[in-house]
Amino acid sequence: MGPIEFTGARFAIGDVRLLAPILPSKVIAVGRNYAAHAAEMGNQVPERPLIFLKPSTSVIGTHDVIRLPVDSDQVEHEAELALVIGKVAKDVPREKANEVIFGYTCANDVTARDQQRADKQFTRAKGHDSFCPIGPWIETTFDPSSVRVRALVNDETRQDGNTRDMVFDIPTLVSFMSHVMTLVPGDVILTGTPDGVGPIVNGDTVTISIDGIGELVNPVKRK
Amino acid sequence: MGPIEFTGARFAIGDVRLLAPILPSKVIAVGRNYAAHAAEMGNQVPERPLIFLKPSTSVIGTHDVIRLPVDSDQVEHEAELALVIGKVAKDVPREKANEVIFGYTCANDVTARDQQRADKQFTRAKGHDSFCPIGPWIETTFDPSSVRVRALVNDETRQDGNTRDMVFDIPTLVSFMSHVMTLVPGDVILTGTPDGVGPIVNGDTVTISIDGIGELVNPVKRK
Repeated sequence: MGPIEFTGARFAIGDVRLLAPILPSKVIAVGRNYAAHAAEMGNQVPERPLIFLKPSTSVIGTHDVIRLPVDSDQVEHEAELALVIGKVAKDVPREKANEVIFGYTCANDVTARDQQRADKQFTRAKGHDSFCPIGPWIETTFDPSSVRVRALVNDETRQDGNTRDMVFDIPTLVSFMSHVMTLVPGDVILTGTPDGVGPIVNGDTVTISIDGIGELVNPVKRK
Repeated sequence: MGPIEFTGARFAIGDVRLLAPILPSKVIAVGRNYAAHAAEMGNQVPERPLIFLKPSTSVIGTHDVIRLPVDSDQVEHEAELALVIGKVAKDVPREKANEVIFGYTCANDVTARDQQRADKQFTRAKGHDSFCPIGPWIETTFDPSSVRVRALVNDETRQDGNTRDMVFDIPTLVSFMSHVMTLVPGDVILTGTPDGVGPIVNGDTVTISIDGIGELVNPVKRK
């Protein structure tokens, strides 16, 4: 991250529109990183992190609209803790992974489940425009080891997990990914979703809530 | 693409180092787009384009080194025609797809085949640093409908296909991808590989040759 210049100006949160807190160079995500979620999808927990990419064009911020594609009948929420990379990182050992993390935010790994089933590859199902809400901001002082991660649809709690149940913890994920590809400042890593994923439909509002960070809120609309 | 300013200076090709001709915002690729290649991998031809992403950090230019990861025993070449997007494009009809294409180049969709088999998801296997050579330049006046696409390892021809054998032609690919995600100038699309994929090992030189474009040449080295 380059240096930030503070202007001293202050605005009430209700008076501003928050954009996505980062325009990522890449978004790397991990599948089946909570055992209960792997089980609900009929999958085993993988031997090593199962990584995939979401395109930067899928990123939106809080209060932006999740647009349902016309060619899917089953779009689902996936509440996830996300982290933002702060330093160029390649082959980072697990014990130094925290040094390359800039901060943490909420993410929703929105997924067209029917397309995921049809393609096997996750790219189309998870790559539609608006399918990667992140925000509302980046928390730079945050301990991610044991925090509650929830998804609410309208007022109903659908997912209520805890990051202590990750199969591969955050230092392991960052180290593993950095052994495959160079991480650059602004890259975003999604750390997997707990169980309870389910449908979102036209007119819903989906909220990803992470204790110690805040709430990422997105209305859902037919395209 | 922004406007280009020509300085009038001219250099012999032997006196310069060519970088990758584009630093892509995203690289979208397509699996099993030649029937004979799908068959050699034991796969059916898909009903619709099977898309996946390669990270921008995997891009290198001609004469840059393909680095073999320490955790793979089977890295393979995949010769492909690539195209570069020139205009923001969403939901482009097939018959207007050519209008958003800036030009064409050679690509090598380098793949750790053992990791692809293990993960099923293609991201790790195809996402290592240096696994997306593109170049040597972008050809802006080029008819891609029936051109020879070859891979040579050292002096041996390994792949010798023709773009007329694509399952989904280029306008269909661009239209399909643009219905999933917004294409932005500088995005690179890899159009699939013909049959004949095979191993590259330490000390090899791999050349992707496309008639009417040129040759993309990369030495292969152990990491």
